[in-house]
Formats: sequence, structure tokens, C-alpha cells
Amino acid sequence: MPQKTRIIGIDPGSRCTGYGVIDSDGFRHDYVASGFVKIKGEELPERLGMIFTEIGGIIEKWQPQTMGVEKVFVSKNIDSALKLSQARAAAICSGINAQLDVGEYTPRAIKKAVVGSGSAEKQQIQQMMKILLKLDFDPQNDEADGLAIAICHANHMHVKALGIATKVRGGRWR
Amino acid sequence: MPQKTRIIGIDPGSRCTGYGVIDSDGFRHDYVASGFVKIKGEELPERLGMIFTEIGGIIEKWQPQTMGVEKVFVSKNIDSALKLSQARAAAICSGINAQLDVGEYTPRAIKKAVVGSGSAEKQQIQQMMKILLKLDFDPQNDEADGLAIAICHANHMHVKALGIATKVRGGRWR
Repeated sequence: MPQKTRIIGIDPGSRCTGYGVIDSDGFRHDYVASGFVKIKGEELPERLGMIFTEIGGIIEKWQPQTMGVEKVFVSKNIDSALKLSQARAAAICSGINAQLDVGEYTPRAIKKAVVGSGSAEKQQIQQMMKILLKLDFDPQNDEADGLAIAICHANHMHVKALGIATKVRGGRWR
Repeated sequence: MPQKTRIIGIDPGSRCTGYGVIDSDGFRHDYVASGFVKIKGEELPERLGMIFTEIGGIIEKWQPQTMGVEKVFVSKNIDSALKLSQARAAAICSGINAQLDVGEYTPRAIKKAVVGSGSAEKQQIQQMMKILLKLDFDPQNDEADGLAIAICHANHMHVKALGIATKVRGGRWR
């Protein structure tokens, strides 16, 4: 039975950043922790600093081995796309500071991984997290997204590991 | 005579990030170090990680007390604006990780601080850095911008400090 990996998933936002921590072997996912950080402060460095520091603290507390982050999509509003991309960069830096690998996933890939459809609604993700991770509470929006990103990263890592194993068996890799 | 502060100025870029370190009391600026980091890597986390780690190493080496960063301007190309804003967030996180205050300045404010005109050309900034900091070499573009940002931050901090002193004298502050 493959060993489980502890994964943190981050749903970055310039107002609220969600996170979810799971243990997973790619098939079974165990809930560890989740929550969200409300971003305060007037100036951008202060706000990015809050994301960097808070996510850093969460990493230190839960000791994940790897990180998944949602990829920025370009929205119609360039100002909010910029804010989002900066929030995301700060979250990635928290992971790098703790020497984690960081994987990126599009919103579509995340939805497909947990609901089976790339166009799933927010509520479907929340509901699916409750079922998949046997939660006895209703996760908040960004918190549910954090958990979904962690599961997407778990699946991706597992597929990648299987791919390498096949290659090793096929003799194409040393 | 006021004590000099060690300042790092960062000109973030997704391909090349320039930096300049000076000692300054707001009037006299002494050159300490400058250079640029060529950003390599395919994936965004890798590239942001490189900025975060390299600038972190430069901060550790030169021990600045405060940081100035160029503010992102929204360019016509949204993709390059996003890349730039993420590079900038990574540089800000390096500063925050080293517990530095971080100030932001628009390109216009930086040009005005060192050349006297908000619409100065790149070459004018390079030339002005050579004169102001008595450099015996021609600084590279991003390197010169890093130094210019450090000087802009020095001026700003000095003006801010004078403002507070006036308020204290006026009896409006305790």
C-alpha cells in the first residue's frame, strides 16, 4: 500500500485565501485541516505580507510535504486579475520558503478532479468535499476550494508516480 | 548628523530583476552594491521561487534595513502585466521574510526623484546613477533602476521623518 503524502491546497484571493490540508495516497484522502485567512491592510506589501506570513504559519503547523495552488485565470477586470496574481505569488513564496514543491492547476482541472465536470458550481464543490472527506461541518467557500485543490494535486501526483513506474517497467528509463 | 540607513531598491521583472543597495541619510547616498538576477525556469512557481530565493540571498548578504520596490503599471499586454505583478510580489515577500518595511513607488516618482523629470529616459537614469553614486562602471539597465528606486525610497523616508519631527515640534504629537 503506497504511503500517504500530506498535501496543502491553496485558493489564493486578495481578500480571503482558503486552504485545505489532506493526507492522500492518490485514492484515499483523509481530512487533516482547513480554513481561510481574511486579508487585512491598506497597502499591497502589508496585504501580501499577511498572506505570506499566515500561510507560512499554517505550513509550519501542519507540515505538508507538497503544495497545490489554483492557476490565475484572466478575468475581465485587469485590476482584480493583478491583485489575484499577486496574492497567488505570495502563497507560492510561502511554499517555496518551506521548501515545498508547488503544482498549479486551472479552476477547470480542479472542478473536474473533484466533481467530474469542469463547469461545476461552488456549492457542488462544497457538497463533494463534505462527502469525500467525511466532514461533519459545512466548509466555507474558499476553504472547500483549498481542499479541492489539495485533492486535485493528490490525483495528479499519483498519476505522475504511476507514469514514471510504467516507464521504469518499460525499460525506457534507467 | 543623521545616521545613514541601508536601503535596497528592487526593479522586479519576470525575466530579469535588478537591485541596488545604498547607504543614505536622505541627502548623501553611498553606493554599496548592485546587480541583476536573470530569471530561469519553465514553470511559474520555479521562476517566482528563483526571485524569492535570490533576492533573499542578496538581503542576507548586504543586510539592508528597508526596501523600495517599483509599483506595477498596467501595460497594454495583460499577460506581461500579470507576470510583472507576480515577480514583484515574490520580491516583496523576500523583504517581508527578512522583516523589512517595503515602500512602493511609481516609475514616474522614481524618475522624478533621480532625474527631476517623470518622463526621463532609461539612459538618463543610468547616467545619473553614475554621477550621483560616483560609479566607476556603467550600470546595466535594471541595476540602474534598482539603485534609482533605493534613492527614491531614501528621499521619501527622509521627508517622512522630517514631517514627523515638525509635528512633534508643533505639539500636535505627544
